[in-house]
Amino acid sequence: MPLLDEDRLFPPEPALRDLARALYEDVRDLPIVSPHGHTDPRWFAENQPFPDPAQLFVTPDHYVFRMLASQGVALTDLGVPRVDGGPTETDGRKIWRLFASNYHLFAGTPSRLWLDHSFQHVFGIDRRLSAQTADWYYDHISDCLTRPEFLPRALYERFGIEVLATTEAATDDLRWHRAIRESGWRGRVVTAYRPDGVIDPEMPGFADNVALLGQQTGFDTATWAGYLDAHRARRAYFREFGATSSDHGHPSARTEDLPQAEAAALFQKAQRGDCTPAEADAFRGHMLTEMARMSLEDGLVLQIHPGSRRNHSDAVMAMFGRDKGFDIPGRTDYVTALRPLLNAVGMRPDLTVILFTLDESSYARELAPLAGAYPCLRLGPPWWFHDSPEGMRRFREMTTETAGFSNTVGFNDDTRAFCSIPARHDVARRVDCAFLAALVATGRLDSEEAPLLAHELTYGLAKRAYRL
Amino acid sequence: MPLLDEDRLFPPEPALRDLARALYEDVRDLPIVSPHGHTDPRWFAENQPFPDPAQLFVTPDHYVFRMLASQGVALTDLGVPRVDGGPTETDGRKIWRLFASNYHLFAGTPSRLWLDHSFQHVFGIDRRLSAQTADWYYDHISDCLTRPEFLPRALYERFGIEVLATTEAATDDLRWHRAIRESGWRGRVVTAYRPDGVIDPEMPGFADNVALLGQQTGFDTATWAGYLDAHRARRAYFREFGATSSDHGHPSARTEDLPQAEAAALFQKAQRGDCTPAEADAFRGHMLTEMARMSLEDGLVLQIHPGSRRNHSDAVMAMFGRDKGFDIPGRTDYVTALRPLLNAVGMRPDLTVILFTLDESSYARELAPLAGAYPCLRLGPPWWFHDSPEGMRRFREMTTETAGFSNTVGFNDDTRAFCSIPARHDVARRVDCAFLAALVATGRLDSEEAPLLAHELTYGLAKRAYRL
Amino acid sequence: MPLLDEDRLFPPEPALRDLARALYEDVRDLPIVSPHGHTDPRWFAENQPFPDPAQLFVTPDHYVFRMLASQGVALTDLGVPRVDGGPTETDGRKIWRLFASNYHLFAGTPSRLWLDHSFQHVFGIDRRLSAQTADWYYDHISDCLTRPEFLPRALYERFGIEVLATTEAATDDLRWHRAIRESGWRGRVVTAYRPDGVIDPEMPGFADNVALLGQQTGFDTATWAGYLDAHRARRAYFREFGATSSDHGHPSARTEDLPQAEAAALFQKAQRGDCTPAEADAFRGHMLTEMARMSLEDGLVLQIHPGSRRNHSDAVMAMFGRDKGFDIPGRTDYVTALRPLLNAVGMRPDLTVILFTLDESSYARELAPLAGAYPCLRLGPPWWFHDSPEGMRRFREMTTETAGFSNTVGFNDDTRAFCSIPARHDVARRVDCAFLAALVATGRLDSEEAPLLAHELTYGLAKRAYRL
Repeated sequence: MPLLDEDRLFPPEPALRDLARALYEDVRDLPIVSPHGHTDPRWFAENQPFPDPAQLFVTPDHYVFRMLASQGVALTDLGVPRVDGGPTETDGRKIWRLFASNYHLFAGTPSRLWLDHSFQHVFGIDRRLSAQTADWYYDHISDCLTRPEFLPRALYERFGIEVLATTEAATDDLRWHRAIRESGWRGRVVTAYRPDGVIDPEMPGFADNVALLGQQTGFDTATWAGYLDAHRARRAYFREFGATSSDHGHPSARTEDLPQAEAAALFQKAQRGDCTPAEADAFRGHMLTEMARMSLEDGLVLQIHPGSRRNHSDAVMAMFGRDKGFDIPGRTDYVTALRPLLNAVGMRPDLTVILFTLDESSYARELAPLAGAYPCLRLGPPWWFHDSPEGMRRFREMTTETAGFSNTVGFNDDTRAFCSIPARHDVARRVDCAFLAALVATGRLDSEEAPLLAHELTYGLAKRAYRL
Repeated sequence: MPLLDEDRLFPPEPALRDLARALYEDVRDLPIVSPHGHTDPRWFAENQPFPDPAQLFVTPDHYVFRMLASQGVALTDLGVPRVDGGPTETDGRKIWRLFASNYHLFAGTPSRLWLDHSFQHVFGIDRRLSAQTADWYYDHISDCLTRPEFLPRALYERFGIEVLATTEAATDDLRWHRAIRESGWRGRVVTAYRPDGVIDPEMPGFADNVALLGQQTGFDTATWAGYLDAHRARRAYFREFGATSSDHGHPSARTEDLPQAEAAALFQKAQRGDCTPAEADAFRGHMLTEMARMSLEDGLVLQIHPGSRRNHSDAVMAMFGRDKGFDIPGRTDYVTALRPLLNAVGMRPDLTVILFTLDESSYARELAPLAGAYPCLRLGPPWWFHDSPEGMRRFREMTTETAGFSNTVGFNDDTRAFCSIPARHDVARRVDCAFLAALVATGRLDSEEAPLLAHELTYGLAKRAYRL
Repeated sequence: MPLLDEDRLFPPEPALRDLARALYEDVRDLPIVSPHGHTDPRWFAENQPFPDPAQLFVTPDHYVFRMLASQGVALTDLGVPRVDGGPTETDGRKIWRLFASNYHLFAGTPSRLWLDHSFQHVFGIDRRLSAQTADWYYDHISDCLTRPEFLPRALYERFGIEVLATTEAATDDLRWHRAIRESGWRGRVVTAYRPDGVIDPEMPGFADNVALLGQQTGFDTATWAGYLDAHRARRAYFREFGATSSDHGHPSARTEDLPQAEAAALFQKAQRGDCTPAEADAFRGHMLTEMARMSLEDGLVLQIHPGSRRNHSDAVMAMFGRDKGFDIPGRTDYVTALRPLLNAVGMRPDLTVILFTLDESSYARELAPLAGAYPCLRLGPPWWFHDSPEGMRRFREMTTETAGFSNTVGFNDDTRAFCSIPARHDVARRVDCAFLAALVATGRLDSEEAPLLAHELTYGLAKRAYRL
């Protein structure tokens, strides 16, 4: 019996379901455009087999291990590496069994949809994961991973990916992207410019990062002018490796447009490690506006991913480091926060700023009204905790009436989990088709408009918004 | 083929749809009670033809031109007048073609529902607006507008309007209302008292406005007592022209109940232009409580429309002025903000205060609990960005369980777009009937109660709440 | 004709409704586990008849009388007792008639569902309450109340209650719980430890309460160490009467983990009545962490019910006192507020902290991500204004995808209204089954998983989370 219902995520009412299914049939096999994510370019550069099922599905996936942790499973028992190099489980089969015996925890979650999709579509599995089937799964997946058709490039091709963006720090040397290019492989894997490490004075190693940026670009990053030039040069370097966007993960959506002398003074303080938290926040905010100005020069699309209160647990941060599932969203203001940037460059139609949120209460109240007015603004798809069927439905229901579809940018998978990419895009396609079907069935959309919009939401908007 | 689906906005499930349709059939032709809006009384006073299709549908409608602007259309290309009198498009046909070729942007928005309703029901059009049909539309509507049955009074009657409230500044001379009355025309067009210009120390021309109010009423508005008396007199003047309500559009819902000496001192500062922002806010807040006390004397219903961060774009404000689609909602607190007013007069059942919001997160958390307790409070209908099918559904789903239906006040169209009035009321009637049908189908309402409630939501509540 | 639709709250679509009904049939008759509420243990100790219909259904139920008050009914006309002992209506039949003639106000509210359920299932009534049927109802219910099968213990048994938790102040002598135990009756009525009166420096009588706690436990509560020991001793005393939980109703979710010397100093200030509001808030916050530490010693589950702005109307508070329907929710932050407690003890899987909210915007943004990561956290069911069909649906839709089902704790009725207990549990069972049915119908849950989850949501989770 297949793990997945062929009609999953379509509305139960029969006529509506038929409408949704027909829309979906038209877009299900469109190429995947993945304009923002966190896969590892090394996979495609080296094209080596993925190590084992636990390393593929459990240990690196914070969606998976945080849920297990929430029910009392120790992260060390899941093989999550320790900062101090101390003992952590290394037996993939033991990790897998622990995961399998807790698989019921994922009932009703998008992780379950993504995992089952991978199990069925990537590995051809037709039985539910559980304590009973754990070993069978482990053996089966392990066996597959040794075969050429499960190598990263083969999967990329099998998944129908047209373009895949990774995200690299500004100071990354992009060696894996270079290797991909030099390998002659035809897959299109591009980078994105993520300069948090050289923009956020509160990031560990900020001054060193800035100095490294100077070395990499040949500009004197000890000065404000040199620092800005170094960004320009580094953005150009990233553009050589296909980058069409920058990405910024700040604690808030705050922007500033400070006088240059004031920004330069903050930058000096930041290099000396002397910024107060308020000054660090102001500097980050100002740099978003500088980045937007550079986007007007070089065409990079600017993405803002604000509002995560990262590393909420001191104990988890101390033992396991960043990105371990203890990043919790908080309320995020956009209306006041974005005003300096928008007053500086917001009316420029040749600029594209894509806004994301972890605070759904801002969809109808702030984000849709902003994107429904300013020419530069677009709304990113539901992000992180909201990259889910209910989250996607709420996004459409709360943004479409004010911002329409054209101020949105299609789907982002935003994932580190390679096998989940087709699963995530499939969920988005299904939910969007269900939404469009409901509009048709309630007389809010013509039946001939819906397929065109389904195509846009799946493919056209992402290509154009990200200039891919 | 008609532009509109006869069953639009009803639930797709057949039995539920039948229930909703039956409820709707009973209320679809009830008279329109429009207790709050922004149409121009001059239309009804002069009864002249509307100028051209662009002037009717595009140039004055901030819902329409902000969406076009968000996709890069210049406001000057849409004929929006400039503050400096500089060049702006004046060729109605060019504006209309630009609008028509971008009409697809409105897919899924309430503007599309309102526009199509006007096209079909007011102008008898049966083809979709597009670049291809732009000229046909323009010619057809232009032709209609020259005919007597498309004059403002004829449309008022055709729309089945029983009463229509406009909104005038406290210092408006109400000349057009006087002209309507003197014309002998039987339409009931009433005014509403909007004193923001003489209450908000931060409004341009505040002191001059207050002085004018003194001249108009014969009271010495240089003094606090005279200022309050002038309000009383001006409210009485507005009541002569049918006003049953006042309306207040403050940045927040803040109220205060200051000692009179303190309020008087703030008022002196305000007249001198010396208020700090905090003092201006306190003065506005105090005046809401004074207005509520006057309402207890003269019976005017008090409406509070808070929470818009107006004129968000400095560039748009500088070039085009206020009300140009760049007013963005923000988070709004009601629980703390309203307490002073409610402690002063909130338990008086002979007072009616109608609360609106642009922050839907306050519906279930703050507004329904407040209105479900204080005798003076009623909840206004979904406002502005939320005056839409999804917005109306969320309003009912998030307020009914705590506040019931009786603490709501029916629908407001709140519009400047005359032709959209029947369209907007029709949307509200359909969505409310769909909501009631769902309550019946899920055993939360008796089938004999639903038609009575449909009538109340359409007609009864608005008449009684607004004392019309 | 029955008052209640047998299929109420199930989805209207026929196939989905069948799925929901089948799930519900399996759980409808499961025993009621009521792990948190506010019924009066005296009822079960004395087992005397309830006085009259008005005293049973109207006068003590703040859901009911606040709605009547919101439409202008005076609380004195409903018999609500006055703080000053002044006149209030005492004629039950007059109160009942007033209630009955306003029963239409409850259309669409959960109160209506609960009341009709009680009328039909407890009192066998088959006609709608109205002015016309008021006297018939009054006579019928009055007559029933004199009969042995309507005594509190008989109803407890008829309702199928397996365990019922009440809530008592830390300084309560638990005399009624003792009397229940000594009576030999087999009903399981347990207490819960609610120490707000000895933890919140802003509660009237705080110092006296602390002194009384000292007398009751034999510890010197004038000292910080003695105060903590007194808590330990009193928790042990409560555990003798079945308590498995403590409960904390603070204005916010703020927690602190202060140095002991600092906490001790605040405690001294609090006893002298010298705390500033900020210090009182810090002390309350610190005590939550102390309570959590004690929970690690004695196993009590810690419940946090934050965010009510209590006694919003000064006039109602002055005339009628606390808990009179004028407690209004406000925005509540959890992410920052809970961090000190979570950093202190949050990774301990042997601790259970159950979080409630009156701010639904925190469900998907804060609460589900927190409970989906920290081992100690669980999400309490929809509370107070959100204990309703739409509220329950939103809770599941906004928490399940991130926190799953296992981080929730089943249903709480949380009520003072004894007859509403089976009604409230029935609503929860129906809404949860409808939610599960929708997951099955949309391919997000296997059909064999759904009945197991329905059982868990109805029974298993509450038993285990509350250690009952």
